[in-house]
Amino acid sequence: MSLLTVGSVAFDAIETPFGKTDKIIGGAGTYIALSASFYEKDQKLVSVVGEDFPKEMLDTLASKGVDLDGLQIKQGEKTFFWSGRYHNDMNSRDTLVTELNVLEHFDPIIPASYQGVEFLLLGNLSPQVQSSVIERLTERPKLIAMDTMNFWMDIAMDDLKKTISMVDVLIINDEEARQLSGEYSLKKASKVIRAMGPNYLIIKKGEHGALLFNEDKVFYAPALPLEEVFDPTGAGDTFAGGFIGYLASTNDISFDNMKRAIIAGSALASFCVEKFGTEKLLNITKQEVEDRIEEFVSLTNFEMVQTVG
Amino acid sequence: MSLLTVGSVAFDAIETPFGKTDKIIGGAGTYIALSASFYEKDQKLVSVVGEDFPKEMLDTLASKGVDLDGLQIKQGEKTFFWSGRYHNDMNSRDTLVTELNVLEHFDPIIPASYQGVEFLLLGNLSPQVQSSVIERLTERPKLIAMDTMNFWMDIAMDDLKKTISMVDVLIINDEEARQLSGEYSLKKASKVIRAMGPNYLIIKKGEHGALLFNEDKVFYAPALPLEEVFDPTGAGDTFAGGFIGYLASTNDISFDNMKRAIIAGSALASFCVEKFGTEKLLNITKQEVEDRIEEFVSLTNFEMVQTVG
Repeated sequence: MSLLTVGSVAFDAIETPFGKTDKIIGGAGTYIALSASFYEKDQKLVSVVGEDFPKEMLDTLASKGVDLDGLQIKQGEKTFFWSGRYHNDMNSRDTLVTELNVLEHFDPIIPASYQGVEFLLLGNLSPQVQSSVIERLTERPKLIAMDTMNFWMDIAMDDLKKTISMVDVLIINDEEARQLSGEYSLKKASKVIRAMGPNYLIIKKGEHGALLFNEDKVFYAPALPLEEVFDPTGAGDTFAGGFIGYLASTNDISFDNMKRAIIAGSALASFCVEKFGTEKLLNITKQEVEDRIEEFVSLTNFEMVQTVG
Repeated sequence: MSLLTVGSVAFDAIETPFGKTDKIIGGAGTYIALSASFYEKDQKLVSVVGEDFPKEMLDTLASKGVDLDGLQIKQGEKTFFWSGRYHNDMNSRDTLVTELNVLEHFDPIIPASYQGVEFLLLGNLSPQVQSSVIERLTERPKLIAMDTMNFWMDIAMDDLKKTISMVDVLIINDEEARQLSGEYSLKKASKVIRAMGPNYLIIKKGEHGALLFNEDKVFYAPALPLEEVFDPTGAGDTFAGGFIGYLASTNDISFDNMKRAIIAGSALASFCVEKFGTEKLLNITKQEVEDRIEEFVSLTNFEMVQTVG
């Protein structure tokens, strides 16, 4: 099937306890498309960059099957730039710089060739941009998933709730689920949030794995215990990209297949954090991904036997 | 097989955001013995109480197969008392009162009938008391597991390391694993700690589940997402009791069986937190435990299929 991703293509500068980078390529759209490309070969991207964005990365994306007709290149303008510094525990970070640049007035354009796309992933962007993409598709995709973040809950909750009501799968982290629902218990939060519209809720818990909620069903995918988390940037987007790429390539949106898709996303995210930025994602093979998925299988696999008493 | 538990039998007074109790019965030994009794019918307890401890609870323990010949009842003395208040997120608490009473000079006595016991669980107590129990057993048990806490790391690290070096399984939480090892990554921490002696390390992560490490193998057991955590007191002891009770009753200390034992312990702990103190553990059936274990199976069960590409 075909997959459309809407998300930022950007520059990042990152500081972690292990080192710092100059401007490197980042952005939710970049991570999602790279991650999804391990599964889905028919991808489309809606995004915007400035004239300063390197053509090499666009060629790389194209070589992985990502159609870039929906990527606007704004002459005379600059690409979105974010800079941040992670704290020692890697679970929190400070934003040092945010330059919106081309994202400030981003008006997503859907090329005619993109119409009829079956899977849609809305990366973290303003909820108005996200909903406008759905509205500009002449036919509703088979599955719409979206990411968002607490920033939009703080400044645009009404718009956000409207967009959330239009999607099938919401992907957020535990802190965001608590803020969005007003409930501390993630089980209670999942009920409140699914009542807002999405039938499926994925709650990412970083080093503690991810939860999938649907009706009365719950799935808990672990995270692989890692020796070192080198740079968490893009891990959530990589997870989402692996998830939606797996679903699109298998064209199966059953709960059982969503579990597999979450494991695929978790495996890809576990690679992402091992190097700065997209470096690791650009240098692993499909076989390495399959091997890591096997690690997840043995990490969680157990079989109960009948006990006496 | 037979199981010997060494642990406090005590009074607690607990405050949570949901309410508060008067003095109720608690103590690591109590929770462990009650939890293990769902699996192991041949239990022995080494502990100490004052003359103020209610006979009814001792009768209850005896009715569940717990031999109390090793429980000292000190006339003219008072039972250990702890009082604490949980914060809103239930993940942290303040100790309001600690009255050591009979625990202050606790000298564990091993009845002759206890010699030859196959499984030993050392509940959280001073590391000197814990090691003295091992030394007083004429024959080393088949498996020795121990719990401890950061308090002993702060005041008795040398004694603690000596005791840790004598056991097979160490059961601690993530914060304690980080403090004991000086490593933030739990995978790195597990290597440092297993180099201290124990072949198996279990790291409890509360609402995020538990990890089991042995050689190059890792198992990640999830925690069941709960609507409400009413009172976390005793959850760790209940987990440990279910774990060791399952191992003792099946007499199988393979890695695969330890996985099952962790699921059994997790299921029992998920009940423990639903009411104050031991109330829930005293009022569930073995069938309810089995049903909850089934919930854990469906919570984590997934099956990967071959994908194309």
